[in-house]
This record gives sequence, structure tokens and C-alpha cells, in this order.
Amino acid sequence: MKKEVSVMESVYSKNNAVAGVINDKLTRERVFAVNVLGSPGAGKTSSLEQIIKRLGILDCAVIEGDIESDIDTIRLKQQGINAAQINTGGACHLDAASIRDIVERMSLRPGYLFIENIGNLICPVPYQLGERMRLLISNATEGADKPYKYPYVFEKADIVLLNKCDLIEHVDFDTGYFLDGIRKLNPDVPVFKVSCKTGEGFDEVAEWITRKAEVVIGK
Amino acid sequence: MKKEVSVMESVYSKNNAVAGVINDKLTRERVFAVNVLGSPGAGKTSSLEQIIKRLGILDCAVIEGDIESDIDTIRLKQQGINAAQINTGGACHLDAASIRDIVERMSLRPGYLFIENIGNLICPVPYQLGERMRLLISNATEGADKPYKYPYVFEKADIVLLNKCDLIEHVDFDTGYFLDGIRKLNPDVPVFKVSCKTGEGFDEVAEWITRKAEVVIGK
Repeated sequence: MKKEVSVMESVYSKNNAVAGVINDKLTRERVFAVNVLGSPGAGKTSSLEQIIKRLGILDCAVIEGDIESDIDTIRLKQQGINAAQINTGGACHLDAASIRDIVERMSLRPGYLFIENIGNLICPVPYQLGERMRLLISNATEGADKPYKYPYVFEKADIVLLNKCDLIEHVDFDTGYFLDGIRKLNPDVPVFKVSCKTGEGFDEVAEWITRKAEVVIGK
Repeated sequence: MKKEVSVMESVYSKNNAVAGVINDKLTRERVFAVNVLGSPGAGKTSSLEQIIKRLGILDCAVIEGDIESDIDTIRLKQQGINAAQINTGGACHLDAASIRDIVERMSLRPGYLFIENIGNLICPVPYQLGERMRLLISNATEGADKPYKYPYVFEKADIVLLNKCDLIEHVDFDTGYFLDGIRKLNPDVPVFKVSCKTGEGFDEVAEWITRKAEVVIGK
């Protein structure tokens, strides 16, 4: 167990050193990178579609992380979005080395780079990927107790979306309990109620991201 | 990376040796153990409540695995169910050593032991816990592409529940695509459509589990 822990700590610190290099490179190139986290099926790709539509398709690129398949990359490319796939072949998170390699191959222009992580609320948390912001997508159908059960991902988020709000009347979701759980972990993080089905809330999300990215992308 | 892989392989093989010992012990004691897997918020605890109600509260015990909190254990105990909590403090899966320790402390009688794993479709898969059966809980709101994106957990399942079927009319869920994905990975696994909200489908699930458990528990 001790051996496992010390190997993992060395893995994290090597990873985060590479992430620092990526972050420097992207900042120089005026690319604002966002690490997108959430459970399987939280609506990560659907939320990106909504956000990218508002930020401008030509100003955005996406790296899709999946264990297997390229379903989401095909879907984004069909909309004209610059998208690239990483298949981890079993690994439960993206790491900085895989991002460095793929960033070299993508033609990025100044703007936004969204990195959609593996659907997992736990393992991606300690791995920095060179991002400037962490976007966490929770959703009403997975229940209001998630901040209490998966605290680390909420603690490290810079922005939280509560997706699938169109279904909130059909499920027993206690919004106050959800928000209280987040506040205890991360008092200042903004939480936006959204629905990928109706588009509700995404104007505000896009506006918030635009404001945060100005320092990197310029006006 | 090589070092990481070889450490992990040794971790798996040590874990699975301990799992074998647990399996032998439980079989001798006529306890049928079920490893319960699913995404965060798939409805693992709610499904267990439905199943246990049908199998008989006195014949069932539950080990709840969570990163933090004992919300679900309290909920089960309030219903008179013999339940115990494991908090992994950050770890993304349960392992056999933690099950061995807690099984020693629980007074188990012949019957069923449900082990609710951490909400994660990836990391728990290589860790045997002494179970005789793996129960995977998927759900209609997380989308029909999950077998394609998280194939290993579907491949290793002995029974799959498609939960939240009461919401199926409100989401764009392609049941044929979902079932095709499972069939390619695990041709003979039974898939039951269920709803924890209405109780639909759980009579059949409980009957199926009862039949599978007979060889261990006796009639």
C-alpha cells in the first residue's frame, strides 16, 4: 500500500510538471484551456455544444477523452468544430502527457480549448492538464447528495453547472441541500442551472467563461 | 509508466487472492455476495432497497462503499437493514482487504450480502471482492451510449438493470442501441428495465437473483 501511494505521488508530481509546461505554451498562444469534468452521462458533450455555439465555433477546439469509441468527436466534427480524440484504453482519467502530444498535432488558434475528461468524479481530480479553469457538470437526475459523496471534485471546480434542470420536476432533487454541500467545500464557486434540452442558463455560462478568459485571449 | 503498470498488476493479483479467501468463507457460511456497480447517482442504493424488500430484510446485509459520508448506510439502517459503511477517503474503488475486515465484524447469517461499490464505471472493474455475482445499474438518463464508452464494466456484469425507466419518455434514449452495445460485449447477460420510483421490474430482478443464489444459500 505504501509503495502504491508513493508511486502515485510521483506520478501526480511528474504529471503536474508537464501540465505547467502546457499551460505556459497555451497562454503564450492565447489559448484558454478548460478541463471539463462530470459523471458518465452528465451531459458533458451536450453542454460543450451549447457553450461553443455561444462562444463561436471558429474560436473553440475540443479534446474528447474516452476509454473507447469516438462517438462524441464525430458528433462535434459534424458541426464544424475542431475536435480530436484521446482513447485511454481503460485508464480512468486523462493525463498531461497525452494532452501535450495531441496539442502539438492540433492547429490551435487563439480562443478556447475544452478538454472533456473521462466520465468519472474521482480519478481525474489530481491530474492537472494545463487548464486555466475546471468546469464541473453535475445533473439533477443523479441526485443532490453528490457534493457530500464526491467532495474533491466539487472542491476543485471553478464553475459548476447543474444540468438536466428540465427534468427537475420529475425527480426528487433538493436544490438547497445540493448548494449547501457545495458552499461548504467551495464557498465562492458559481453554480449555474442549465438544460441542454432547452438551452436554459447557457447564455450566462458563456458570458461568465468569456469574462474569465479575457486575460488570456485578449479582447 | 511501466513501473505504474507492474505495480498495478501486482495490486490486482494480491487483491484477487484475498477475494478468493472471502468467497470461500462466505460460501461456507451460505452467504451469497453481490458486487453492485454503477455511475454516481445511477440509483444503486434505491435499487437495493427495492430488491431487499422482495428478498426479505432479515435475509440481507449491505456494505456501503463511499469516498466520504454515511448517508446511504443511515438510510438503510433506518429501514432495519444490517448495513455497514466503508469510507475510502479518496480511493476510487473498494478492495478485497477492506471487505475482509468489515465482513469479520458484521454478524452475517445465511442469505444475501450486497456490496455497493463506489460510483464509478471504470476503476472497480479489476477488483474482485469475494462476490458470486456482479450487478450493474445503468440508467436511462445517462444515455444509451454507455456500453460503447465504458465497455469493461458491461463485459464483466452478470446482470444489468436499466433504471429510471419512468423518465424514458422525457429523454432521448435509444433502447435498441443500448442493448446492441451490451450484446456485443456480453451476449448472455440479462437486462431488466426497472424504475425505483414505481417499483417496475424489480419482482423479476429479485426472482432472478433468488434463483442464482440457491446453490449457495440453499432453499
